[in-house]
Amino acid sequence: MRIIFLGTSGAVPTKDRNHISIALIYEGEIILLDCGEGTQRQMVRAKISPMKVSKIFITHLHGDHFLGLFGLIQSMSFFGRESPLYIYGPKGIIRIVEIAKELSVYDIDFDLIPVEISDGFTVEEKNYKIITRLVDHSIETYSIIFEEKKGKKFDIEKAAALGLKPGPWFKALKEGKCIVYNGKLITPEMVLGEEKKGIRIVYTSDTRPTDRIANYIRDSILIHDATFDDNLRNEAYVKYHSTAKQAANVAKKYGAKYLFLIHVSSRYKDVTVLENEARNVFKNTYAAKDLMCIDIKKDNIIINYI
Amino acid sequence: MRIIFLGTSGAVPTKDRNHISIALIYEGEIILLDCGEGTQRQMVRAKISPMKVSKIFITHLHGDHFLGLFGLIQSMSFFGRESPLYIYGPKGIIRIVEIAKELSVYDIDFDLIPVEISDGFTVEEKNYKIITRLVDHSIETYSIIFEEKKGKKFDIEKAAALGLKPGPWFKALKEGKCIVYNGKLITPEMVLGEEKKGIRIVYTSDTRPTDRIANYIRDSILIHDATFDDNLRNEAYVKYHSTAKQAANVAKKYGAKYLFLIHVSSRYKDVTVLENEARNVFKNTYAAKDLMCIDIKKDNIIINYI
Repeated sequence: MRIIFLGTSGAVPTKDRNHISIALIYEGEIILLDCGEGTQRQMVRAKISPMKVSKIFITHLHGDHFLGLFGLIQSMSFFGRESPLYIYGPKGIIRIVEIAKELSVYDIDFDLIPVEISDGFTVEEKNYKIITRLVDHSIETYSIIFEEKKGKKFDIEKAAALGLKPGPWFKALKEGKCIVYNGKLITPEMVLGEEKKGIRIVYTSDTRPTDRIANYIRDSILIHDATFDDNLRNEAYVKYHSTAKQAANVAKKYGAKYLFLIHVSSRYKDVTVLENEARNVFKNTYAAKDLMCIDIKKDNIIINYI
Repeated sequence: MRIIFLGTSGAVPTKDRNHISIALIYEGEIILLDCGEGTQRQMVRAKISPMKVSKIFITHLHGDHFLGLFGLIQSMSFFGRESPLYIYGPKGIIRIVEIAKELSVYDIDFDLIPVEISDGFTVEEKNYKIITRLVDHSIETYSIIFEEKKGKKFDIEKAAALGLKPGPWFKALKEGKCIVYNGKLITPEMVLGEEKKGIRIVYTSDTRPTDRIANYIRDSILIHDATFDDNLRNEAYVKYHSTAKQAANVAKKYGAKYLFLIHVSSRYKDVTVLENEARNVFKNTYAAKDLMCIDIKKDNIIINYI
């Protein structure tokens, strides 16, 4: 699995930071988390195709998080896209999709499907699920949680106790099917153990530090709002954002595996100050940068730049 | 006077080319010609302030020419803009400005004034005028002509014949005022000659080669659609665009001073092929590039990059 930071800026873009968007690439599918202005150009730079985007999650309706939708949709249409595109977002997303259609002088020849999200809303796919949880920002805003499904562990000892020998029936049981073995019904529950740990990615979106997403953070890759440094924590509070230190406190308290700081204010030309204050609290911290790419291999990550 | 190419791409942006926008900077005022997605970030790169933009001309309502408006307007509002912003465009521009307001969750605290343009529409300012002329594209599209007003030449010989000696009355007459000199009424017409030549910039926008703007091209800086090379002239015709060679033919036929090629298709990684085919016809040709900056000093231009 790969994460590409397409844009990492706060409200105002900079020379080095585009408006926010994060691409999750999982088994050939691309899922976008937010789609700030200029996302389609960042995708060109990242060498990923808009045609492979299946789902876009808009965390909230501040312009810096969704104004790239219109151009991206028009380009998909220009390239002849036929497969449907799901656009998830808070109340108002249906209207945004109507506007996207109105802004295009050409008919959009693929299905554009807006879906209103709510606290606890879940998209279930075969190998992953995505959950949206309300956070603490100035307008209705959701964090996005990606969870890989790895299935349950196969308990060899339980299988042996039932007299089961290795064979194709193991695969069937792992897939949740019942089998009859030597005339005896064996159900998956009889041989499967606890859930295997998959990849978990938590993107907070814009928020004050919040415990509303606490349950999802353990062992996760946490991508947290870090608009300000901790000297500006009052400003962060008033504007419903977090400081780098606050992000690190959340990562530490709830046991994240890695922390990436995002939505950095344009005042920080050099983000070392943010990285340092966070690392004093939580060592595995990195400031996200545009076109930074994280490959996730079991428990390890490899950070590269495109 | 300075021209900055903020974006020079065709319908699809590339690593090196943003969606189209051209900034004209004249006596501290910034006028934008088109405003493709990502224009606000290009302005950050070009180190020019959105607050100094007084007028935006949208040549037509294809997304690659106007989708940067929404983010730019929101950023102006975020920065506390108070001065009005005029947005000129074809039929439909009023609706676009309504949508811009709807897309902002915050009130926009400055006047956003949409103005519908038509063939021959003119904005008259003290020192320049801007004219919009219909061209030949797939939808209603206007070229934008910027003309500096330098006033009429002062005819020293005519003044002498009237017995006028140099003095502050010269300035008054140059400014178009009547004077009484030694008891005799002297009107500006009696001492002024032909119009002095000012700077003229013609931006064709997206178009097939057309003679509708022929009258404006002499001695101008012509910024012409050059989406394709001449091997693709059939495709250019079908898509209502021009080839580099066709742009050069227009520049030569109507006596432009300089030609800049713009709206280059993303297929050209290296635009030398376009520049060469145009230069074979019209020597003073340059392919416009993002953040290319043209300073105009009398009859000369200086090309730099920001």
